[in-house]
Amino acid sequence: MVESAPARQRSWWGWGWADQALRASEIDALAPLVAAQLDTAVQRRDPVRVGDLDLRRPRIEAPAALRRICSTDPRERAGHAYGKSFRDVVRAFHGEVAAPPDVVARPGDETELASLLDWCGSNDVAVVPYGAGSSVVGGVETGGKWAEGYRAVVSVDLGGISGVLEVDRTSRAARIAGGTTGPDIEAQLRPHGLTLRHYPQSFEFSTLGGWIATRSGGHFATNRTHIEDFVESTRLLTPSGPMESRRLPGSGAGPSPDRLVAGSEGILGVITEAWMRLQERPVHKASASVRFADFDAGVEACRRLGQGSLWPTNCRLLDPSEAAANAGGSGEAILVLGFESAHEPVDGPMALALECCADAGGDVGAGVRVREQGTGEGGDGPVDAADAWRSSFMRAPYLRDAMVALGCIAETFETAVTWDRFADLHHSVTSTAEASLRSVCGGGTVSCRFTHVYPDGAAPYFTVLAASRHGEQLAMWDEVKSAVSEAIIDAGGTITHHHAVGRDHRQAYDRQRPELFAQALSAARRTLDPQGVMNPGVLVDP
Amino acid sequence: MVESAPARQRSWWGWGWADQALRASEIDALAPLVAAQLDTAVQRRDPVRVGDLDLRRPRIEAPAALRRICSTDPRERAGHAYGKSFRDVVRAFHGEVAAPPDVVARPGDETELASLLDWCGSNDVAVVPYGAGSSVVGGVETGGKWAEGYRAVVSVDLGGISGVLEVDRTSRAARIAGGTTGPDIEAQLRPHGLTLRHYPQSFEFSTLGGWIATRSGGHFATNRTHIEDFVESTRLLTPSGPMESRRLPGSGAGPSPDRLVAGSEGILGVITEAWMRLQERPVHKASASVRFADFDAGVEACRRLGQGSLWPTNCRLLDPSEAAANAGGSGEAILVLGFESAHEPVDGPMALALECCADAGGDVGAGVRVREQGTGEGGDGPVDAADAWRSSFMRAPYLRDAMVALGCIAETFETAVTWDRFADLHHSVTSTAEASLRSVCGGGTVSCRFTHVYPDGAAPYFTVLAASRHGEQLAMWDEVKSAVSEAIIDAGGTITHHHAVGRDHRQAYDRQRPELFAQALSAARRTLDPQGVMNPGVLVDP
Repeated sequence: MVESAPARQRSWWGWGWADQALRASEIDALAPLVAAQLDTAVQRRDPVRVGDLDLRRPRIEAPAALRRICSTDPRERAGHAYGKSFRDVVRAFHGEVAAPPDVVARPGDETELASLLDWCGSNDVAVVPYGAGSSVVGGVETGGKWAEGYRAVVSVDLGGISGVLEVDRTSRAARIAGGTTGPDIEAQLRPHGLTLRHYPQSFEFSTLGGWIATRSGGHFATNRTHIEDFVESTRLLTPSGPMESRRLPGSGAGPSPDRLVAGSEGILGVITEAWMRLQERPVHKASASVRFADFDAGVEACRRLGQGSLWPTNCRLLDPSEAAANAGGSGEAILVLGFESAHEPVDGPMALALECCADAGGDVGAGVRVREQGTGEGGDGPVDAADAWRSSFMRAPYLRDAMVALGCIAETFETAVTWDRFADLHHSVTSTAEASLRSVCGGGTVSCRFTHVYPDGAAPYFTVLAASRHGEQLAMWDEVKSAVSEAIIDAGGTITHHHAVGRDHRQAYDRQRPELFAQALSAARRTLDPQGVMNPGVLVDP
Repeated sequence: MVESAPARQRSWWGWGWADQALRASEIDALAPLVAAQLDTAVQRRDPVRVGDLDLRRPRIEAPAALRRICSTDPRERAGHAYGKSFRDVVRAFHGEVAAPPDVVARPGDETELASLLDWCGSNDVAVVPYGAGSSVVGGVETGGKWAEGYRAVVSVDLGGISGVLEVDRTSRAARIAGGTTGPDIEAQLRPHGLTLRHYPQSFEFSTLGGWIATRSGGHFATNRTHIEDFVESTRLLTPSGPMESRRLPGSGAGPSPDRLVAGSEGILGVITEAWMRLQERPVHKASASVRFADFDAGVEACRRLGQGSLWPTNCRLLDPSEAAANAGGSGEAILVLGFESAHEPVDGPMALALECCADAGGDVGAGVRVREQGTGEGGDGPVDAADAWRSSFMRAPYLRDAMVALGCIAETFETAVTWDRFADLHHSVTSTAEASLRSVCGGGTVSCRFTHVYPDGAAPYFTVLAASRHGEQLAMWDEVKSAVSEAIIDAGGTITHHHAVGRDHRQAYDRQRPELFAQALSAARRTLDPQGVMNPGVLVDP
């Protein structure tokens, strides 16, 4: 008799795995460091236990035919009430779960999903698609003003619609179910020698369908940066039926159906499958760190690299604060460069990239680390800035949760902007954030890094740390966030480069998108979702 | 006193410049060669003179306020009745211009264009946007069954909305008016040291707006192949007003507005401006020809190159017929490879690409020609297969017109398909075309080349030559075209990789696009064009 290991449990309130959260003792050890950095007293609190929540009773009951896939279990409902943004985690941590989904549904296939959408459409029940729940923009949140228009809200967990369904080795593509998580995709592609190589920070806790629905940004810092660049075709289950595009390597036949699906954030339907363009596993890798006296010099180097044709896989510029915190910097900006290829040696492009950096004033003395065939994904420990960065990158959200426990503010936001406007945007956003933090929190730090670099601009990513008080974190952060969002839009940026719009960015998005485009998108939505039940509150109102 | 040269005149019936058409004596010299190749008697006819046309009288008169920009001149109307496909040229050549536009309008700016759209919308007048008129898919055709629903048809020539309006050297981007032709774009960017590098075969006779509206494919055979890959933002003048997207290097904020505009073929409005991502002028260039014993071996080499990360600028595989006709081949397939860069030497990637070709069985003995800094666009004569190919490429449409004069059939069609289906598609399309040509024309030739190569597939481009008879060319070609279009869709291809859908591909497009997507697109269209006057007959019915 084989005893199966208990399934690893997700945190109901915080990021990721429950067993990966910092323990009370670890948070206590962190407390004095945080207090010193933020110059404030901090006090650890513990998250409300899910069993202690007094959730609103479900306002609707699933019909008999759907009962098997529907749950009203309190832990399920509480765990599906929010995504994993700072504002989500703060509320859940303190037990503020005012509007959990009435029902959590887990369809096992498209037929069950279609029945569920039918039922919701006929009963004025809002449908909130839930991939693996790590939205940081309110994309899976089940409460809010929008919900008042509905009889009830169902969170549809797509984890049951999972798996790599078909592999086409010749075209190097695979048909993958929408609910498949990052690790499952990679594990199932590995035997074929293939990889999608899409590694957002949420890799473990997000799904292919979620990536496409939110235009997720991933592994590649240049050239093909967003998941939709790797989409060959999509299958969207709408309340009006399935919409499936043809597998094509390229096409000029009318506007791309896949580009309407990409970024649709659930308002048009649920992405049940997609054919994805894959990579072979890289066997040539090189990474290097380049130091710059200041951020501006690093920015100029990134601009030149972005406008060349070397296409580095990594091109992450850390400002002096980020460099100090994550890559062993001491006052300089650090550019983490990486190249990888399954076919061709990468020492040539790396040498040219370093030459370009040196021309822009970079100190390339730290040298290049080249890993050749067979070394796989690394795993030889954090020996340089690139590894140090990767390690802290994956650990960051758990640390963010510890900051929540200490009553502080720790959050990120991101944008993209053309090079001509970058310096102004960076200055305006940073100074707005700092001023807002001073006025709201009495101070705090704002740091910046580039996640992606383009020929015509860059995607800066900001991290905010500030003192706060238990019970006031949410209101304080909302004020700061509102100010920086305005600053981003005013400075010509996008309200999101790869986190999506969700419910949290609606106000800024309404300023950003062309009004006629919103009307056209709404019209398309009415066709595919005539009852207006699909993920209300995001993008455009039903 | 300066005497200005007379403006060079476009052919009213055929391709390009009137003075570039083959003269009667040249066509007569060609006749015996064509007769021998097609094993048929051929007889030259001359095109109907535009003055001899008896055009239908205009059915509507422009209001006083618009009269300055509106023309009913017969040459203007005849010249705007068709695009430049084989079926267009045959009809015009023989004076079959049954449904010319009632009016040709030439707005000089967006205000005039808006007034024109208002007038058309209020008077049930169809609007056919006309860039520079080289559509080969019926995209600018002013007649057809669809036109019965309208009181009149206006062809809107956008040549007056032209110019590079603003250059952002830092971001390497420019704001360019929609009606700007290829040569004008390049001439106005050259002083800035910049180039768009979009060189479709129609380069001289097409515009930026037309390229975006049709998802034109251009210079780059790999990586970024279509014009929309270089679009930073768009401005669309719809009957409901302007829709302008934000300039962004990348974004994840909802579905891309620009990707709705790209491929919209005039049904949503007129593209009046776009910010385009540019290139610096390449100073490193290398080209080479690789010979393969057969087409299949060349296909395999292209697949491997497409799945690598070298991104050749040119990767055009010519089958033995094309190689013999255009690149001095004698029984083998020839792959024309090219690399270019403004920043980095290209000998490294070229060497790796040739290695890849040799591994796939290619004969790379012919060698590489490297051109370094300062040699510009070439111009040193057709000394190798690459140059021979380019020269015959630009000349081909004029030769096609000579074939029309000889009463033959000469036309091309193109698609894209994933690698796993390529061999079947190639076989099915070729054999369908050959069978159809045998039954309809008593024989003929079908040849194939790759225009673009992707990681997951290729874009094959087919050329057909066949005997026919004056007066029957159109019906005979239509029968062949219908058969090959069916074969393409049946084999999993797209009805167009870069020629667009237009009116000629509607039947196949209706099979290809998801039905729900067509409904969503129609709903978007009703929002932007409530009167349903914009380019009726293409993509989806108003």
